Formats: sequence, structure tokens, C-alpha cells
Amino acid sequence: MAITTRTDLERLDREDPLAAFRDEFFLPDGIIYLDGNSLGAMPREAAQRARQVVEKEWAIGLIGSMNTAGWYALPVTLGRKIAALVGAKPNEVVLTDSTGINLYKVLAAALQMQPERRVIVMEGSNFPTNNYMVQGLVAQLGDGYTIRFAEADEIMAAIDEDVAAICITHVHYKTGNILDMAAITERAHSVGAAAVWDLCHSAGAMPVDLNGCNVDFAVACTYKYLNGGPGSPALLFAAERHHGEYLQPLTGWFGHAEPFAFERDYRPAHDVRQMLSGTQPVVSLSLAEIGIDIMLRADLQAIREKSMRMTDLFIELVEQRCGDHNIALLSPRQAERRGSQVSLYHEEGYPIVRAMHDRGVICDYRAPGNMRFGFAPLYIRYVDVWDAVDRLQDVLQTGAWKKPEYRERAAVT
Amino acid sequence: MAITTRTDLERLDREDPLAAFRDEFFLPDGIIYLDGNSLGAMPREAAQRARQVVEKEWAIGLIGSMNTAGWYALPVTLGRKIAALVGAKPNEVVLTDSTGINLYKVLAAALQMQPERRVIVMEGSNFPTNNYMVQGLVAQLGDGYTIRFAEADEIMAAIDEDVAAICITHVHYKTGNILDMAAITERAHSVGAAAVWDLCHSAGAMPVDLNGCNVDFAVACTYKYLNGGPGSPALLFAAERHHGEYLQPLTGWFGHAEPFAFERDYRPAHDVRQMLSGTQPVVSLSLAEIGIDIMLRADLQAIREKSMRMTDLFIELVEQRCGDHNIALLSPRQAERRGSQVSLYHEEGYPIVRAMHDRGVICDYRAPGNMRFGFAPLYIRYVDVWDAVDRLQDVLQTGAWKKPEYRERAAVT
Repeated sequence: MAITTRTDLERLDREDPLAAFRDEFFLPDGIIYLDGNSLGAMPREAAQRARQVVEKEWAIGLIGSMNTAGWYALPVTLGRKIAALVGAKPNEVVLTDSTGINLYKVLAAALQMQPERRVIVMEGSNFPTNNYMVQGLVAQLGDGYTIRFAEADEIMAAIDEDVAAICITHVHYKTGNILDMAAITERAHSVGAAAVWDLCHSAGAMPVDLNGCNVDFAVACTYKYLNGGPGSPALLFAAERHHGEYLQPLTGWFGHAEPFAFERDYRPAHDVRQMLSGTQPVVSLSLAEIGIDIMLRADLQAIREKSMRMTDLFIELVEQRCGDHNIALLSPRQAERRGSQVSLYHEEGYPIVRAMHDRGVICDYRAPGNMRFGFAPLYIRYVDVWDAVDRLQDVLQTGAWKKPEYRERAAVT
Repeated sequence: MAITTRTDLERLDREDPLAAFRDEFFLPDGIIYLDGNSLGAMPREAAQRARQVVEKEWAIGLIGSMNTAGWYALPVTLGRKIAALVGAKPNEVVLTDSTGINLYKVLAAALQMQPERRVIVMEGSNFPTNNYMVQGLVAQLGDGYTIRFAEADEIMAAIDEDVAAICITHVHYKTGNILDMAAITERAHSVGAAAVWDLCHSAGAMPVDLNGCNVDFAVACTYKYLNGGPGSPALLFAAERHHGEYLQPLTGWFGHAEPFAFERDYRPAHDVRQMLSGTQPVVSLSLAEIGIDIMLRADLQAIREKSMRMTDLFIELVEQRCGDHNIALLSPRQAERRGSQVSLYHEEGYPIVRAMHDRGVICDYRAPGNMRFGFAPLYIRYVDVWDAVDRLQDVLQTGAWKKPEYRERAAVT
């Protein structure tokens, strides 16, 4: 499709079957928020829910809300809901703790499937906290455990009969490159290795079919495309066939067969609850339900189609309008291989991103030179794609990014 | 002191130097809340803070709030504050994750101090999730690690030169019995063992002097006497002398020396940040600050004195007025040995607690027969002690607890 004017994109917005979802989110005036891949926007109802949980459930219900407001069961009840978004059965998912801690739990369980093997395959360039957590586990286990790092096109070859488990992130945080979950999982299983997947940049951004791919364990955060709120507790998936077979080691009372029997010794629950450890941050966890409920009303296939179209358009317009400014595409050009973000390289990416912020376009930066633009299909419009490129062109043509203050690094970038 | 009338207690309230703090908490009309030992009441300002975090920091500030609202630094900034409440230096404490997960982290670090030893001493009757977490760690470490369970008066003798670490809870969740942190830690150190303490039922209820006792590592929850909100993230203390020496194994990016360098391999921070793992539930974590700030304005010695006086009075009045009803005291009689709760035994404790709830007194039950009455000195008044005993006497004298529906167990008790 040749896009020549903003009017073309207004038409796409009018025809967009997801257009109505935008009204369910609060978006600040004058901001084009292209960082939903870091933190999703606030669903308007989340503000109401926060008041409910704090001012009613906590203030008035007090400890009784454990039962009456369902606090105690939240990791399981929200897990049952979110399961549909990742191709899992309701009894295979819980919401709890952080992504990293959940990764530690499930990988420790997965390694029990091949107790004689010592190799874990990971994509070293992907989000490093996964490497770090696995390095911690490997150091703790000792006994010859090791990580075999392989980049995207080396992964299949790296999976041989020494491999106990693969621990791979579905969509790359820097480039948006999608790995083939079905093929890699099949390869892992063909040599008897367990398959552990991280869905941080895919859950809520595209259909994910954990059971269709026969995945063993998975984790995901809920605060990116699932709009659960800052640091909302993470998703943990354990395939039903492994329940009661392979145990995670952070064995707290929420994972006990009878938590309120207060027995001295641990007896594991024989279902997904074994993946739980302790008391959860109820306010943050409750808020996550709002984003999940919205997503359950959306069609993930429509989300994916809009996502591919928006990112295609973004690339097309950037190349049309900013082609003279030493920008290179870091994301895959084929939409099918790309998540819901576009990463552009520019040597001076950091000050350019800062200049974009000043013009109301929130994107982010990952060294070296990587400018990330995330397109969350529930609340980003096609015209936002146009306007973002418009401002990028302006920043590049005018050299606005050259202001000295744009080079100063924020504490967290 | 002989208390004969409610008027005597009204006088104590008038003279109470902490009396004004009650107004800072929301307490539902007609409720006497004696379960602050499970979940502290809501500070009124927490409602305001929740709106701030959700409706401003998240909705408007979006990802920028990582810096501008200090989200990223919250585990450290709140740790610096809370340190003063437990006798720690500001750089020795973080707020993060759950108590159980923090216990796992610090014990794994503590065991590195005596790598040749294999015994961990615990009080088996105390809150079982600690046993469970340590059992998970022991199972994972293998290699002969074992837990030596010892009850209160057996602990000193159980600490010998086979012991790598003690992992002990300061105040007993069922009885309120206080263990002698100084003496037990000294005994542990005298045989070369590390001392790990759990302060769940003491932090905010009494002065705690971790450095005065030379404790190595400690954990505590923040949602009981610290009024942080349901499931608010937990306290973790690591003595400065161990920073950079003994590492916890849940090595996420928040514990990396340079989290935003996104390096492939883990490099530990050489300070208390190494105890952090991943992204925290920001809304729940932010709310915890309100309770901490209130507590920092209170005098912990005054809190302790009021606590001892209230629990003394409660015991005295129960024995005066309910002495004919087969009730026994499970808590230590000496106030100095007792935390901020009184536990009473009655064979029919469960329906009695339910009948008390119906009369507006929120206490709780732990099988077998243990009725727990917690007295949070910041918001419980001396007259509440009188009124609670009044209703207990009524429930017992009238046999009101014999209604069949009081025997039905709630899902969570």
C-alpha cells in the first residue's frame, strides 16, 4: 500500500475493528506513547479498581478480604483468566512474583526432566536478566551445569543431546525479532530437552499457543502489552503433564498442599499452585486483572494484524521521509518475523530519543544506537504512526537533537 | 494495677503519648481490629498515595516515572528509611519481593559463610513457610544439608559446631513468645555459625537492634505492624560486612553492578542491591512508604510500653472476667517475653472467634484452639482492650458461639 498522506491513515483508523479499545485507556494529552513495550498505558478502570482495593477491601474489609475479596486466590483466579491469552489451559497458569523469579522456578523444575544433562541453551543477546537468573541457578547447582549461548540463527544447531533445557525469549527485546516457538520446541523435544519460553514481548501483542507448541514451562510479564500496571506480578505457565512431577525450589506456603494446615514440613500441591511461594502484593496484583479483562475482549488475531500493519507503515514512512539521515532498520523487515516494535539504528540514537520526548513522542533507547518504537494495537492509532514519523523527520532535518542537554543521561534510560 | 472499670482505661487513653496516631488510620465504625498482627490497618494517607501512583505516576508519567517518580529506586530508598526501625544502617536494607523469597536469598548467602558445615537450626513450630523455604533450599543444595529443629528452650543447646546457620523467627506467630536475639546470635557466632532472623512479628511492634545484636541477615514482612498494605514487599537486611562477600542466588538485573548496561553476564553489585532480583510491584511498594513514615515519627520504646501494658491488661481482664470458661493463656505471662499479641486457648476457639467477629471484634484463629488477639499500639486504644474482653465474656457466658454456622470453616482462616 502506498501511503502518501495523513488522510490515508485516518481512514485506516476509521476502519480499525479495535479502534474502540483506545477509549478504555487513559493517554495524556499531546503524547504519542510508543513505549507500551516497556510499560502499558493505564486502563481507565484501573484507577477505579485501585480505589476499590485500597479504600474498601483493605481499609474496610481488612484481613477478612483474604476471603471476601478473594485476595488469597488471586494468583490462581487471574492465572485462569490469562491462560486463554497464551494458549494454555486455565489450570496451567498462575500470576505471581516477578518474571525473573518465575524463570528461576520453572527452569529449576525443567532441569529435573533430564537429571543427567548439564547444558542450557539461551540466546545471550536477549534481555540479560534471564541470563543472570540462569547464571545464578547454574552457580548454585554447580555440578557441571553450563549455559550454551546461541544467537537466533544458531539456536537450532545448538540444541543437541547434551541439552537439558532451552530457555528462550520469544520476541527479542532489542530488535523485536520473533523466534519460531513451534520449531525450536520441537527440536528441543526431538533430543529430549525441555522447552522453557519467556513471553515478555509477545503476551498480549500476538496470539501465542503454548500448548499448540507443546511448551513445557513459560513466563511473561504482565505490565507491557497486558497493561497490568508498573511491576505487576508475572505470569507462570507449567504444562499440566508436569504437575506434581517436577517441583520448583522456592517452596513457600502458597505452594503447599494445605497451606492453612500450618504443617511443619512442606508437602507440594499437585497442581500449578506448587509454582507459588508466598504472599503476593495484592494491590498490584488486583490491578493486573483490568488489563487482562480488556485483552480477553479483544481479538488477538486482529491485534496481530494491526500490529504488523502499523509497524510496516512506520518502516515505510521512515524510509520515505527520513531516508537521508543515516538511519538503519534493526528489526526484521518481514512483518511476520517482527513483534509489535520497530527498532531503528542511529549513531546518535540517545539524543534523538530525548528530542522526540520533548516533542511528545515517547519511545526508548537501548545502547548502542537502538531507538525502540513500540506499537500497542489497543490504544495506538494509525495516525500516531504518521505523527511520530513526522516528528522524527523534523528532529532529524532540523538537527534539533544536537542540543547539549539531550546528551545528558537520565538515571534510568 | 487493678483495673475495675472502663473509666480507668479511658484515663489511660487520655494519657497515652501515642494516642494521636490513631487518627492517621482508617478504622471501620464499630470494629475493634485485633488482627494488625496479620494485616495492619490502612493509614488514611495510603488512599491518597494509591491515587497518586495510579492516576498520576502511571497514567500520566507512564514509563518516565521510573526516573521522575523514583520507581526504579524504591527498593533502596524505602530500605534506607525502614532501616532505622530495625537497628540497621541505611545501606543495609532493601524492600523487595516476599518474606519467603527473601529468606531463601539470605540463607543461601549465609550458608556460604561456613561452606563445610551442613546443619541449619530452626524452630519447627514457628510459621511454617520458613521451614518450607529452607526445605526447598536444602533439597536443592543436596550434599548433606539438613535442618535441625529445636523449640524455644532447646535452641541454645542445638547450636553447636556443626551448625552453618541459624534461621530463627524473633516472635512466635502462634504464642507471641519472644526469643532472645542477642543471646542466640551470640551463641551462634561463638560456634562460627551465621545468624539469620525473621522479624515478621516484631518489626514495628518493638525496638529491634539488628546491629546491636550483630545479626548477619534478616527478613521481615511490612504488612503487619508496619501497615504497608496487603502483601506489600518485604524487608531484607544484609549486614554491611557481608556485602560483596556472600551472594544471593536469585541474580536478577536489579542486583547487577550496572543494570542498565544490559551486559550479557551477571556482575554482582557490591552492596545491598545484590539482594534484589527483578522489577517490583510499584503500586504495592509505594504504599508501604506511608506506614513506614508514620512509624518513623513514633517512638518505638513508647510503642513497646503501650503494647506490654495493653497485653497485660487484656490477660488480667480475661482472667478476671472469663476465668470460668476453660480458657488458658498460650502466650508468656511475663510482658517482657511476649510480643504484641495474646493467644488464648479454648477447645472451641474457632466458633468463638467467629462469634467475636459477629460482635465487631476481629481476632483470628490458628488450630488447635488458638485464638490470637493482636494489639497494634498505634491505633488500638486501652478501651478497646476493655470492650474486647467485654464481648468475649458475653460470647462465653451466653454460649453465643454454639450457633452451627460458626463452625463452618471459611476458605482461608
